[in-house]
Amino acid sequence: MGAAMLSEMATEIVVPVCAVIGIAFSLVQWVMVSRVKLTSERHASSANSSKNGYGDYLIEEEEGINDHSVVTKCADIQNAISEGATSFLFTEYQYVGIFMIAFAILIFLFLGSVEGFSMKSQPCTYDKEKMCKPALATAIFSTGSFLLGAITSVLSGFLGMKIATYANARTTLEARKGVGKAFIVAFRSGAVMGFLLAANGLLVLYIAINLFKLYYGDDWEGLFEAITGYGLGGSSMALFGRVGGGIYTKAADVGADLVGKVERNIPEDDPRNPAVIADNVGDNVGDIAGMGSDLFGSYAESSCAALVVASISSFGINHDFTGMLYPLLISSVGILVCLITTLFATDLFEIKVVKEIEPALKKQLIISTILMTVGIAIVTWIGVPSSFTIYNFGVQKVVKNWQLFLCVGVGLWAGLIIGFVTEYYTSNAYSPVQDVADSCRTGAATNVIFGLALGYKSVIIPIFAIAISIFVSFSFAAMYGIAVAALGMLSTIATGLAIDAYGPISDNAGGIAEMAGMSHRIRERTDALDAAGNTTAAIGKGFAIGSAALVSLALFGAFVSRAAITTVDVLTPKVFIGLIVGAMLPYWFSAMTMKSVGSAALKMVEEVRRQFNTIPGLMEGHAKPDYATCVKISTDASIKEMIPPGALVMLTPLIVGTFFGVETLSGVLAGALVSGVQIAISASNTGGAWDNAKKYIEAGVSEHARTLGPKGSDPHKAAVIGDTVGDPLKDTSGPSLNILIKLMAVESLVFAPFFATHGGLLFKIF
Amino acid sequence: MGAAMLSEMATEIVVPVCAVIGIAFSLVQWVMVSRVKLTSERHASSANSSKNGYGDYLIEEEEGINDHSVVTKCADIQNAISEGATSFLFTEYQYVGIFMIAFAILIFLFLGSVEGFSMKSQPCTYDKEKMCKPALATAIFSTGSFLLGAITSVLSGFLGMKIATYANARTTLEARKGVGKAFIVAFRSGAVMGFLLAANGLLVLYIAINLFKLYYGDDWEGLFEAITGYGLGGSSMALFGRVGGGIYTKAADVGADLVGKVERNIPEDDPRNPAVIADNVGDNVGDIAGMGSDLFGSYAESSCAALVVASISSFGINHDFTGMLYPLLISSVGILVCLITTLFATDLFEIKVVKEIEPALKKQLIISTILMTVGIAIVTWIGVPSSFTIYNFGVQKVVKNWQLFLCVGVGLWAGLIIGFVTEYYTSNAYSPVQDVADSCRTGAATNVIFGLALGYKSVIIPIFAIAISIFVSFSFAAMYGIAVAALGMLSTIATGLAIDAYGPISDNAGGIAEMAGMSHRIRERTDALDAAGNTTAAIGKGFAIGSAALVSLALFGAFVSRAAITTVDVLTPKVFIGLIVGAMLPYWFSAMTMKSVGSAALKMVEEVRRQFNTIPGLMEGHAKPDYATCVKISTDASIKEMIPPGALVMLTPLIVGTFFGVETLSGVLAGALVSGVQIAISASNTGGAWDNAKKYIEAGVSEHARTLGPKGSDPHKAAVIGDTVGDPLKDTSGPSLNILIKLMAVESLVFAPFFATHGGLLFKIF
Repeated sequence: MGAAMLSEMATEIVVPVCAVIGIAFSLVQWVMVSRVKLTSERHASSANSSKNGYGDYLIEEEEGINDHSVVTKCADIQNAISEGATSFLFTEYQYVGIFMIAFAILIFLFLGSVEGFSMKSQPCTYDKEKMCKPALATAIFSTGSFLLGAITSVLSGFLGMKIATYANARTTLEARKGVGKAFIVAFRSGAVMGFLLAANGLLVLYIAINLFKLYYGDDWEGLFEAITGYGLGGSSMALFGRVGGGIYTKAADVGADLVGKVERNIPEDDPRNPAVIADNVGDNVGDIAGMGSDLFGSYAESSCAALVVASISSFGINHDFTGMLYPLLISSVGILVCLITTLFATDLFEIKVVKEIEPALKKQLIISTILMTVGIAIVTWIGVPSSFTIYNFGVQKVVKNWQLFLCVGVGLWAGLIIGFVTEYYTSNAYSPVQDVADSCRTGAATNVIFGLALGYKSVIIPIFAIAISIFVSFSFAAMYGIAVAALGMLSTIATGLAIDAYGPISDNAGGIAEMAGMSHRIRERTDALDAAGNTTAAIGKGFAIGSAALVSLALFGAFVSRAAITTVDVLTPKVFIGLIVGAMLPYWFSAMTMKSVGSAALKMVEEVRRQFNTIPGLMEGHAKPDYATCVKISTDASIKEMIPPGALVMLTPLIVGTFFGVETLSGVLAGALVSGVQIAISASNTGGAWDNAKKYIEAGVSEHARTLGPKGSDPHKAAVIGDTVGDPLKDTSGPSLNILIKLMAVESLVFAPFFATHGGLLFKIF
Repeated sequence: MGAAMLSEMATEIVVPVCAVIGIAFSLVQWVMVSRVKLTSERHASSANSSKNGYGDYLIEEEEGINDHSVVTKCADIQNAISEGATSFLFTEYQYVGIFMIAFAILIFLFLGSVEGFSMKSQPCTYDKEKMCKPALATAIFSTGSFLLGAITSVLSGFLGMKIATYANARTTLEARKGVGKAFIVAFRSGAVMGFLLAANGLLVLYIAINLFKLYYGDDWEGLFEAITGYGLGGSSMALFGRVGGGIYTKAADVGADLVGKVERNIPEDDPRNPAVIADNVGDNVGDIAGMGSDLFGSYAESSCAALVVASISSFGINHDFTGMLYPLLISSVGILVCLITTLFATDLFEIKVVKEIEPALKKQLIISTILMTVGIAIVTWIGVPSSFTIYNFGVQKVVKNWQLFLCVGVGLWAGLIIGFVTEYYTSNAYSPVQDVADSCRTGAATNVIFGLALGYKSVIIPIFAIAISIFVSFSFAAMYGIAVAALGMLSTIATGLAIDAYGPISDNAGGIAEMAGMSHRIRERTDALDAAGNTTAAIGKGFAIGSAALVSLALFGAFVSRAAITTVDVLTPKVFIGLIVGAMLPYWFSAMTMKSVGSAALKMVEEVRRQFNTIPGLMEGHAKPDYATCVKISTDASIKEMIPPGALVMLTPLIVGTFFGVETLSGVLAGALVSGVQIAISASNTGGAWDNAKKYIEAGVSEHARTLGPKGSDPHKAAVIGDTVGDPLKDTSGPSLNILIKLMAVESLVFAPFFATHGGLLFKIF
């Protein structure tokens, strides 16, 4: 079997160093963004000043650069958005905090009860001849790592939001100087978030492993079983973040659009619209904070899944620390690769015109994938022995290092394919979105029909890509292969997050431009950034879903191993009913979240209508609307409405496992996985396509687009309806579904010892 | 084990006698419908006559009964619809006929090649010590039964269409006398179709078994393996019927509505609308002929699934003919039970007011279920021995007769529950549809969001009902239990079809009333019948989907047994990739069918617009539109567009089985089943709910409804958009999906001998 080339000591150094490099790079990017001054001490009070702190480098195409009152206005608006977002997140975290503590107690009680809270060492699960730490220790450490994961997730979301609200107004101001400058600010800010999250997640996990090792010593089986709590904590916070944030943002967005754009015929983000601040706050708490938590959760879970399988394979059995930490090494190299990739977007090339934006972002994906392929090859070459064994449902399976390389590589490239397909179906540069736009000619109904059909169709290739990666990695290295394939897909997470976060930042920048009363051209520039952002958001969701499918399968496999069942046979009634009920859960969940958005939006519509009807001079722009009430409606609705879907996801594995046992639970996990991934992909692509079909008509760049426009035409109105329907699909129910499938799997894994001992009560009674 | 109480001779008598009673009852109902005269010899030419051939029994509430010119008009319109439908079906059958012959050849070649076209007897599959008929015989007889099933299916659809087009104008005329009279004509016509199909399907199957027995003799294993071709033939015709008919009807419907109702503001079915005849033809070829073929397919497949499993169980091994024909005995009793049930609707009670319609239909469901429970108990008591064994993936399992009774019963009652839940979610008497109607206040977007959420939510209880029936019947009697549970659900098919067919007949009746220029009150009556019809159509679809889930599981089990694999383990890469790709197929299929409807509707819209713009005096009613061109557009589109989705479904099992082998195919079947059933239920309920939300606003019966109306108000326009989006969901993609899952399963079963011998080429090569 041999040992890895990289020594244990070298591994102990490489991982934290890469993490620190990532954090440092993130700070450098932040400093660069901060050079766009919102208020310079010298000029804040004198509106006549000729500089805005960044003016030295200015070139020809700039617009309205000397109107310094807009800088103050932008700062004010930014402040309002930032305050709204911060206050919402604090409220959300209060409620979720209570839940987290309750759930932590539950974990402790369930896992502690496995051995009746005994403090005695016990025979190990997989190697009965050795003694392992008591179940009580697993209970305590799992609870600890759960809380650690939850806190890291909160931190990820919160920091992301802070950066985004810091960057939005700066992007607006830069848009005065041209689309290229604005792009760089938005993209750099995205990179701040991407690198901070990736590096932070890695560092915390690394520290936790080393701390846990102090107690567990050589009992790696127990150590990494306890570490899975980190994934559970990360993902459960992500669930509430995505669902709560998703309901918040879409209630505000739908509400604002329905009255503003459809009834009152005022532009999007018009400051007269009372829901406009809530809408912009929503982008930051939903798309940014929610997504940050979500991708952190995916990262944490795929690492945990790989680690827990590795711990019962030759790496764990032989105590090969470098091989054991292979998943963390991949993430470490990923940070370096993404760092180089980012330079291509920000320093090596410059964007000058609108149509260069999408290719530039696409280039990011391609460059990072190619570089990462090399990176994986190196890590696999030096980080694992040329041949080792992997635990495969009861037997050990021999894996060569080149096979492992293929497992990670296939995940990485499947991610790229999913990204490209998503781009094809959601970008208005290609025929699918243009066909949807064209169908608006005959009204909203055909637009909705075509959009739904587009979403369904967009599922085909990603599913084949996922299926092929599963087949390759499963055949080579069983569940470990699947877990590292997921890690491969997520290895370029820093770049992925950067291009993903860039979208909502641009969206906010456009909103601020509109509210600050800046010129039409600036809005056009931010709109162009935003249209590309819709596509990148869809790509980001594609990655999130694809990786979620792999991660949950790996977690599912780990759960099955831990629960000591060797087959999950569809042809047994217990498994089959699990399968069909599991496949139903994503529908139940989507019904809840969509209805929540709908109801909250109705309330918002009523409030906005009330304000337009009762505040004199509002439509004329003489009076200011009452933004706070709308913010409160969104906050209250999302806090209240995130509980039932959250409970559905968190309680299902507990109920099924406890009452129906591990076989039925296996069926539920498999069913939810194969059904949820389809709905998630189709929902986000449908929503993205509708949004961009609308933008296609609005921008009127091509001859075809102009026959459908302009704004306010009948086809445009039909397109707005599609866009509104798509909002909850793409930003609430769709992206939450990948958390549903991951979370149920990781929760089952954490509770596996309990289910295996005490589960299946109902069948035991009858 | 003992033998059944009922002798073989008695069984040979009971089954055909019940079938003949069903056919006779159907003829009696037809005679009663025919007493409503469209043209009496005496009066056709004299418009002043005081009678219309049925006038003797008339009472007060009649309306416009003496205007005899409308009778002639109705007859003309009926003629046009009937001709259009007949000509479409003939065109469709020509194309499908070619396909059927090609597929029949394929079956022969594939199955014949299993033993290299050898004429020699071979050891039986399950009992290697006995000799069975050669594979070539199976090939020949399977091909024969495939063609028989296909022809019976065509006949079922065609007869249904003929009856419906015979009844529609008669319902219109009766509506002049009141809603009760119209209801009885529509319902009786539905009953003609229901009984004819159920009895015919049973009789043909019975005759086929007896004919095949002449050759097969004691080789029941071979006999019933060959009989499964009957199910495949029935279902493949049903696929084309549903898809082709579905595209036809919805292209016309959506096209007519988009221009007529939305742009020109003329009522539905206005004779000035050029697409109006195509729309009414569509109801008959899609909802009637398509559904007739579909439910016949379900019936044939569940019988075949039960028979093929029984043939390798103790019934088959001991040659217990009565026990063997238990599935047919259940259907026989079902016909008698439905006969009694029908009398409750047509003779024992009379409907006088609109609000009695839905309860009357609901009562049909309840009565038939209660009576059938008794019927099943009797059949099970006398038709099977008190204890027998069932083949369960390699082992024989002992089943008691009361357990078998529970299997059939649980399917029957699960059907009732699905029916009730469907009614709750699609009838405008309850809050879900009223909430959707209410959401139209804020426009089409919220209507679509609420409608989608409603559809997703409506999946929950039916899935639990299906899961429970699967668990109970699977635990008691393995795959035989599932098959008879499906038969239980379908045992009241005659009543189910009657209340299902009644909907499109009423819809047509309303169309004819409008086109014949009859008074507003008559239209109101037919609209009320039609609103109840939307609900019953959704219930019918619920039954079709629920039974399809059970049937495909049973077929899947039979396939797995025949392919000689004993477990389908999700935790093997071959099975898992099948599972996830299988779960994707319903999306692919829906994308195709919805896009087809959308494109065909766009063409229709252009043609209708063209006619309104170029035919002078059309809007004023001076000129007649060119109906024929619209009929041609629908015909061409549906013929052309039904090929790709049809090919997807028909080829997938062949490709997967041949290249990837039986394990992957098992995964595909399970994935398609658990995913497809959810989309199918949600699609039909969403569509039904939108349609009835619109009708709720139009009817304006309650205070709440009136605040949303009247016709032409903004909420009503939003409701029309929802209704239009729902059309392809509920009438094209949704109901075709249950055929997708059944058909793939039965096809796999028929080709199982080939796949088991030559399948999995790709894995054999690598």
